[in-house]
Amino acid sequence: MSERIGFYQDLVVSAEEAAKFVNHGDRVGISGFTGAGYPKALPTAIAEKAKAAHAAGEEFQIDVFSGASTAPDCDGVLAEADAIRFRSPYNSDPVLRGKFNDGSALYQDIHLSHSGQQVEEGFYGDFQVAIIEAVRILDNGNIVPSSAVGNNLEYIEAAERIIIEVNEWQSEHLEGMHDIYKIEKLPNRQPIPITNPGDRVGTTYIEIPQEKVVAVVKTDAPDRNAPFKAPDEVSEKIAANFINFLEGEVAAGRLAYDQFIMQSGVGNVPNAVMAGLLDSKFENIQAYTEVIQDGMIDLIDAGKMTMASATSFALSPEYADRMNEKAEKYKEHIILRPQQISNHPEVIRRVGLIASNGMIEADIYGNINSTNVGGTRIMNGTGGSGDFTRNAYISTFVSPSVAKDGAISAIVPFASHIDHTEHDTMVIITEYGVADLRGLAPKERVEKVISVAHPDYRPLLEEYYERAKQNKFQHTPHDLKTAFDFQINFAEKGDMRG
Amino acid sequence: MSERIGFYQDLVVSAEEAAKFVNHGDRVGISGFTGAGYPKALPTAIAEKAKAAHAAGEEFQIDVFSGASTAPDCDGVLAEADAIRFRSPYNSDPVLRGKFNDGSALYQDIHLSHSGQQVEEGFYGDFQVAIIEAVRILDNGNIVPSSAVGNNLEYIEAAERIIIEVNEWQSEHLEGMHDIYKIEKLPNRQPIPITNPGDRVGTTYIEIPQEKVVAVVKTDAPDRNAPFKAPDEVSEKIAANFINFLEGEVAAGRLAYDQFIMQSGVGNVPNAVMAGLLDSKFENIQAYTEVIQDGMIDLIDAGKMTMASATSFALSPEYADRMNEKAEKYKEHIILRPQQISNHPEVIRRVGLIASNGMIEADIYGNINSTNVGGTRIMNGTGGSGDFTRNAYISTFVSPSVAKDGAISAIVPFASHIDHTEHDTMVIITEYGVADLRGLAPKERVEKVISVAHPDYRPLLEEYYERAKQNKFQHTPHDLKTAFDFQINFAEKGDMRG
Repeated sequence: MSERIGFYQDLVVSAEEAAKFVNHGDRVGISGFTGAGYPKALPTAIAEKAKAAHAAGEEFQIDVFSGASTAPDCDGVLAEADAIRFRSPYNSDPVLRGKFNDGSALYQDIHLSHSGQQVEEGFYGDFQVAIIEAVRILDNGNIVPSSAVGNNLEYIEAAERIIIEVNEWQSEHLEGMHDIYKIEKLPNRQPIPITNPGDRVGTTYIEIPQEKVVAVVKTDAPDRNAPFKAPDEVSEKIAANFINFLEGEVAAGRLAYDQFIMQSGVGNVPNAVMAGLLDSKFENIQAYTEVIQDGMIDLIDAGKMTMASATSFALSPEYADRMNEKAEKYKEHIILRPQQISNHPEVIRRVGLIASNGMIEADIYGNINSTNVGGTRIMNGTGGSGDFTRNAYISTFVSPSVAKDGAISAIVPFASHIDHTEHDTMVIITEYGVADLRGLAPKERVEKVISVAHPDYRPLLEEYYERAKQNKFQHTPHDLKTAFDFQINFAEKGDMRG
Repeated sequence: MSERIGFYQDLVVSAEEAAKFVNHGDRVGISGFTGAGYPKALPTAIAEKAKAAHAAGEEFQIDVFSGASTAPDCDGVLAEADAIRFRSPYNSDPVLRGKFNDGSALYQDIHLSHSGQQVEEGFYGDFQVAIIEAVRILDNGNIVPSSAVGNNLEYIEAAERIIIEVNEWQSEHLEGMHDIYKIEKLPNRQPIPITNPGDRVGTTYIEIPQEKVVAVVKTDAPDRNAPFKAPDEVSEKIAANFINFLEGEVAAGRLAYDQFIMQSGVGNVPNAVMAGLLDSKFENIQAYTEVIQDGMIDLIDAGKMTMASATSFALSPEYADRMNEKAEKYKEHIILRPQQISNHPEVIRRVGLIASNGMIEADIYGNINSTNVGGTRIMNGTGGSGDFTRNAYISTFVSPSVAKDGAISAIVPFASHIDHTEHDTMVIITEYGVADLRGLAPKERVEKVISVAHPDYRPLLEEYYERAKQNKFQHTPHDLKTAFDFQINFAEKGDMRG
């Protein structure tokens, strides 16, 4: 273990000791993205400190900035201790989400490619602390990051004090998998020299300004690594529809079997798509995406995926173990980058990828709600879906047609919160088919969108559209008086059908 | 005149003759952007052909794709003749807008940086005709484009038949002002080698596949060139607020007086901003934008603006004459690029510009409606506002707080169409001040947004927000039952106040 620490040996302290460097009102930037690479010890120690302060009638809350989502032993414990005043740019922790929804914590949900730059440019003010998980500390004081890169560079640069957690659970063989390219400051940057997902343009370590390091904490704890469910019938149908769509692009001459560059949101439907790709004609699949998922590991093992570029892992425990055992092998096929690079419009647009993201609801014209049930109840956040949707060659949204046993329809008259506009959405895929909206005016899209709704909801959607067409104006007909009836029904009666 | 035609001398015909190459059902790509550089003769000839066909009981409609908006003698005459079935990516012609709104023509309103690529990738199908205005034809058959570049490259490549209009009204001295860089096809492009607005990376002419040229038509007609109104009191206040905001950025160390790179929407408010900049401390102003406006010419003349990169002009008649007289001089300070380049996320993000666009309405959380009054009545379109808003260093929206003598508020509870999301909007500016939303959670934004609303509307907005906060969920509180009351009031009673 001490081998992993080297340079800062004298700064090794307990998490409780290190938490002394975190004060009420601090802005704290942490490592971590999609349950990987987040600090494992400090959050609990900070939460204890907060609880003690609160018990003594003192204030203690911090603003927490991450790569993306973390885990119960990070956002969860901090939320339970009411230690978070403000959180950005992404969260999926249920306890913390509860605080946003009951109004006791604030959340700024922004594009993951934007957050680092906004920190750098001072839009949030000064940062006091950075807490960064590492695989190991190099002899010169620099670090090898762990299973996520996220916004580490920006927080290390912005913070006055740096705390490093060295996690022995993370494989030392992750060293060499990262490609740390520091994007230049504005204005008038040079181009990012990546034209292929597999291009390496940076270092395998992160530079650390030694004078800022105030503590090093040893840990030995796993990433969150939630298991994925085996694909169910609905996920398999969606996956089959997605792959049929790709086949159609090949038939139309817009894609070749060895040319598919994938971006994929996280979850069971994307994993079903990847399982489907195993048996498809697609070869030399590449990913330029945020997150490495189980399905990509299977594709790599099968020789179907040659390269996956991301900023973190989101693996099940079984696959995380496999990664730690065989990191040496996987790093031939996997690159972990800073999230300003994994999600950068410049590179996304340039490589020409096909994006696939989940959604909460799509409306009849293709506006997408990715974040707020009923317009008000935050789920996770927009994450990188906007970075990819807006810049992909083709942007798709995939979702089961209904949720909660049919009480919620994924297709609604008017999306109650809009994260992706009708100008951006190209394709919507459910278990009922593919709505290809490319090149269509709003009214031409309606029939296609309704065709992929659940059959229970199609007549209701058609009824709405008939009513909407009574409007004097016919570009995107709406009946604003009943536009949110689906969502109001759900809020009042627990079922969008009323 | 014949000097301007050279190579295709034998193909010179009347507009009526040339219109024979345009058939019912054709997809037609035309030059033209913001009333500049559009074909002046063919549209009328096609409209006549359509009218004759309709009189004979025959069908005649075409799909028209442009750079952006054109003029009464282009979109206007075609619309009057019911000759347009489908239009993309942008329109501001009132007659054609009427057709979209009464349901007799279709409109796909998409980001101007996306349209060319989508044509190229075949999302619309095959193109039959390109009609392109030129300043002159070179000896080898290539052309010098006129006062807009737009999507000329994409339409010339996609079309089976090319018709060139050579417009003698356009100054021959525009030659050398253009920088024609052909972006590579997907996937895995090289970086666009522009890091400063003034970088020239292409040719001064457009290559023409000679075998496709079927006709050349001579014209001598001005661009649309609508006059701008002199700034009124409200515009001047907005401009002063915008410049105060810039001053604040300088004070915060995020901007230097010689470092301002501007993007600006078109109109009277932007021109007032530019007039304000004339008397400001800002020097060495640059523009990386879509359109060169009067105010930029004044800034260039005053030595305050060193470089303006765009894809077209939108000048008043007086300024258009000045441009034609002194193009030789202005081309030291002006570059006209293809719109895939002027609006490209890669370059926009890299240069680090401050974007400023108009809006129809903003809601209390910062979602912006740029396109549809009351969610259904299309005005112009999203244009390049999304390209710039999403990728700017700082994104601002500027608008008078009310329209129609106070009957319409620019600040509403819930935007009835969303073109820019709460994740993107950073700053909203009216004559009442600056709402700086950067780094804030949705609920923290509300007070700031309401503070720039017209005083008549502030109590109504506060009432709504109080009601919204009764919602069980507190991330972006809404009362969906009354969320559109402002817009419904306007539709039913002609006043948002009810």
